[in-house]
Amino acid sequence: MGNNLLKGKRGIIFGALNPDSIAWKVAERAHEEGAKITLTNTPVAIRMGETNGLAEKLNTIVIGADATNTDDLTNLFKESMEYLGGKIDFVLHSIGMSPNVRKERHYSDLDYNYLDKTLDVSAISFHKVMQTARKLDAINEWGSVVALSYVAAQRTFYGYNDMADAKALLESFARSFGYIYGRERRVRVNTISQSPTITTAGNGVKGFDRLLDFAERMSPLGNASAAECANYCITLFSDLTKMVTMQNLFHDGGFSNMGMSLRALEQYEKGLHQDCACGSANDDYPSADEHRYD
Amino acid sequence: MGNNLLKGKRGIIFGALNPDSIAWKVAERAHEEGAKITLTNTPVAIRMGETNGLAEKLNTIVIGADATNTDDLTNLFKESMEYLGGKIDFVLHSIGMSPNVRKERHYSDLDYNYLDKTLDVSAISFHKVMQTARKLDAINEWGSVVALSYVAAQRTFYGYNDMADAKALLESFARSFGYIYGRERRVRVNTISQSPTITTAGNGVKGFDRLLDFAERMSPLGNASAAECANYCITLFSDLTKMVTMQNLFHDGGFSNMGMSLRALEQYEKGLHQDCACGSANDDYPSADEHRYD
Amino acid sequence: MGNNLLKGKRGIIFGALNPDSIAWKVAERAHEEGAKITLTNTPVAIRMGETNGLAEKLNTIVIGADATNTDDLTNLFKESMEYLGGKIDFVLHSIGMSPNVRKERHYSDLDYNYLDKTLDVSAISFHKVMQTARKLDAINEWGSVVALSYVAAQRTFYGYNDMADAKALLESFARSFGYIYGRERRVRVNTISQSPTITTAGNGVKGFDRLLDFAERMSPLGNASAAECANYCITLFSDLTKMVTMQNLFHDGGFSNMGMSLRALEQYEKGLHQDCACGSANDDYPSADEHRYD
Amino acid sequence: MGNNLLKGKRGIIFGALNPDSIAWKVAERAHEEGAKITLTNTPVAIRMGETNGLAEKLNTIVIGADATNTDDLTNLFKESMEYLGGKIDFVLHSIGMSPNVRKERHYSDLDYNYLDKTLDVSAISFHKVMQTARKLDAINEWGSVVALSYVAAQRTFYGYNDMADAKALLESFARSFGYIYGRERRVRVNTISQSPTITTAGNGVKGFDRLLDFAERMSPLGNASAAECANYCITLFSDLTKMVTMQNLFHDGGFSNMGMSLRALEQYEKGLHQDCACGSANDDYPSADEHRYD
Repeated sequence: MGNNLLKGKRGIIFGALNPDSIAWKVAERAHEEGAKITLTNTPVAIRMGETNGLAEKLNTIVIGADATNTDDLTNLFKESMEYLGGKIDFVLHSIGMSPNVRKERHYSDLDYNYLDKTLDVSAISFHKVMQTARKLDAINEWGSVVALSYVAAQRTFYGYNDMADAKALLESFARSFGYIYGRERRVRVNTISQSPTITTAGNGVKGFDRLLDFAERMSPLGNASAAECANYCITLFSDLTKMVTMQNLFHDGGFSNMGMSLRALEQYEKGLHQDCACGSANDDYPSADEHRYD
Repeated sequence: MGNNLLKGKRGIIFGALNPDSIAWKVAERAHEEGAKITLTNTPVAIRMGETNGLAEKLNTIVIGADATNTDDLTNLFKESMEYLGGKIDFVLHSIGMSPNVRKERHYSDLDYNYLDKTLDVSAISFHKVMQTARKLDAINEWGSVVALSYVAAQRTFYGYNDMADAKALLESFARSFGYIYGRERRVRVNTISQSPTITTAGNGVKGFDRLLDFAERMSPLGNASAAECANYCITLFSDLTKMVTMQNLFHDGGFSNMGMSLRALEQYEKGLHQDCACGSANDDYPSADEHRYD
Repeated sequence: MGNNLLKGKRGIIFGALNPDSIAWKVAERAHEEGAKITLTNTPVAIRMGETNGLAEKLNTIVIGADATNTDDLTNLFKESMEYLGGKIDFVLHSIGMSPNVRKERHYSDLDYNYLDKTLDVSAISFHKVMQTARKLDAINEWGSVVALSYVAAQRTFYGYNDMADAKALLESFARSFGYIYGRERRVRVNTISQSPTITTAGNGVKGFDRLLDFAERMSPLGNASAAECANYCITLFSDLTKMVTMQNLFHDGGFSNMGMSLRALEQYEKGLHQDCACGSANDDYPSADEHRYD
Repeated sequence: MGNNLLKGKRGIIFGALNPDSIAWKVAERAHEEGAKITLTNTPVAIRMGETNGLAEKLNTIVIGADATNTDDLTNLFKESMEYLGGKIDFVLHSIGMSPNVRKERHYSDLDYNYLDKTLDVSAISFHKVMQTARKLDAINEWGSVVALSYVAAQRTFYGYNDMADAKALLESFARSFGYIYGRERRVRVNTISQSPTITTAGNGVKGFDRLLDFAERMSPLGNASAAECANYCITLFSDLTKMVTMQNLFHDGGFSNMGMSLRALEQYEKGLHQDCACGSANDDYPSADEHRYD
């Protein structure tokens, strides 16, 4: 059903945990478009999730790797090249995790060991992926590396906590390494700033629903889905976007450039009626929302 | 009560209509800080407003000028230099008007003659002010030119209509002319992107109240007032900010870099309760809000 | 040779003057990808250029239209829908012209009638295209409207003159109308900020060469060509980018996010050698460069 | 010689190593404007530098503190409040260091322990300063916290290495914590993005000279000096900028919004003359430039 946009290309997909994952959809679509791919995740995510099932379906393998460990990454690239029969053409980095969010540490009471972990897993891993690949000369000329980000890198969202800082760092790595990788090997590096998306992690978070509703009403096209994000990734992996690099690209139905929409304002106004009998049970407001990609 | 920050400086203030005007506060504060100023406005605004009263209070004159007319502007600078006894050190451009907003033309049904007028009055007038001043060599080295803008230049706000485009154009003129004026005469040019502010024009607009409430709750410090904006202008006119140019500076309590605050989200959530009996009387929703500086 | 990305889609291409034009390449690529298109240009450009030849080659028609004239635009959309057999799916706006640049008016000595013309032709025409299309309900749901822009909308480039302001205005229209068109009809609106590109107009301009060289050395991937820009347009017209709207997308080999590259700095350093015998013949430095799309 | 802008205020200045340091000038100017301050630096910097001399001159004390150590920071705030006789009104964070730069590790061959150190010293220390202050309730309402940054946070500069990523992270912390600190205590948080400035560290770096020259010619007002930066800091510590928060403010003579200036282009062009006899001795090009604040 594809358009052969990735025919003959080889890719590595990080973070396809289960069918809700953006990375899962990307893997499926890349396969559909003619690419051969390997999947990777941490050993624990592989045990807990459904990555192996996806590998079977797409007739490929899963290679366990801790993306913060350069030895694991070296092994990942080597095995992938061997299995796929050549150098890599595209990589998707879809990794994010914050112990401060998980443990509900307030942003003004961060545990700094947790913060290090957040930055290492969610941002520095991206640099490690690229540095490892470059040292191995594992990516073909005009290859494409994409990481998933969120608009919290630019603007502050209540509850997003230190993930905002991790995303800002991630996007900086895309620019800095994009310069090096571009001038030397013609490899392009970009981030996609995706709408808030319901994935496994997001599902259970109460406050996330409201943000999702707000983003839906603010965005003229509504929130972008995981499947739509996968389509967008395909264009960035294809040869049609060869000269796009060092960019952060918003895939969000227009949210990023909205200040206030009529739909959101109407909804907001309803809350302003003073005589409204329906109070808001905010006393037990959760101190942390997580919006994760996994 | 001032700090002599503008001692010995001469300035021209556009747009001080009445005590609600930001320009009015700027004129008062500049006077307080030791500057000598002239006031200017269109002849009709002078007749309708209270500019003459302010001039009396500050012991100065009002010079009528249509800011879209370069002859008027030439006369304004010449008379001001004569009255103030030398070249000008600072200029405040606080001018904005949209016939499309006034006539409630929807943004997808603009009258293009009105649009020309919006752009001419609200943006091109700024270029004309600077081009006229430069031709007359009317501004001293290290002089400071400031125009007032709004975040709608970057992000779309329901109801702001073609004023958003005018502000984007205004900010572009600040950059483009700031380069020329800086390299040649050390004159700096900036825009201040101010919180939504209740002025005469804004007062009567129903929808504006809701936006004001939203901005207030989104901004960690709340909306910036006209008086606070005047203080900020003083810093930009002073010698303490000599190397700041071609910038758009947000003076908005943090709004511009917020994605979602807890306070705004709580208010928003109240509107989400389905069982809420209090409907929103939105049927007569005005098709256009105006947020003007005058 | 294409991937059927635009199979069954109908489009209108503005500004395909001759084989150097970006719009020319877009027309060819859209055809290749399975789209049916009409071409349009001003009557004088049709007479002077080679648009008719392209129409023959692509087996389609040319419809003359002054893009600043809403009657012409109405006719264009009607004729196009009739010829193509249905509503339009994509539009390329590739129009820019500055009489101030042509007549070598310095940016601090603009002719304001010329400025009006620059803004009308290069920016307001984009609003007119969209307003006309929307009134006729001429664009299908999930249609895609793209205009070509340049990074001068964000940063000041010597010699780009009032075209910088026109591009800032153009990008603002994309955001403002993108909101309206998106929420009502699911039509998306974006601008592509393209590398400086040698087209007919740019060809003869001496100063343009130096900027081209600088941009080439600053950009890790070098300057993007017209053909590569056409490929990028195809992705934006396709169904793979449905949720991208109100964006300004840099297609520039990374230039926009570079501060200084090694290659450009080395070149720059050569000019710093004080003992260099080879002077620069800058006395006759042209006062205006034009970087046009047409 | 001041204007009493900080009369009665109490501040803490990080990073005043010697008279070239921006922080040094800020300390002097704050004193001049009527503030009482304490100075702080790492024990080793205190031994090697001239901070003690400055303290004598300004009649105050130096409190040793490793800004990455929250115990040290707690002690710093407590001692400062005791010495100054009350809560703090302003803080300057002027700290940056990259072992990867010092050890000339190429950006594609980073030592990740060094990267952690870069981020901890140059960025996370800023979060630690604020979190510590907030836990102690050590900053008065409407207090002002400022950190020094560089445009490499937005655009990639050859040789700036992982300091670019550290600055991006620093600016993100300013936004994220600025939201929390603003809504709860009315404390504002901003970064100043300063021109490249010759300080002790920068002095010895060969490549830095060229960037300095380029920035000087690109900026319409030239590069901003350390003394001018100090003046700008004073405005941000004063009560005149109370509603400015979460911003990154460029103090750079216009550099940040320039794409290409005439002066820089002329210099660049000299390097383009093919017949130029004066070659560039770039073979021993240093692999890393450092642009530090200390």
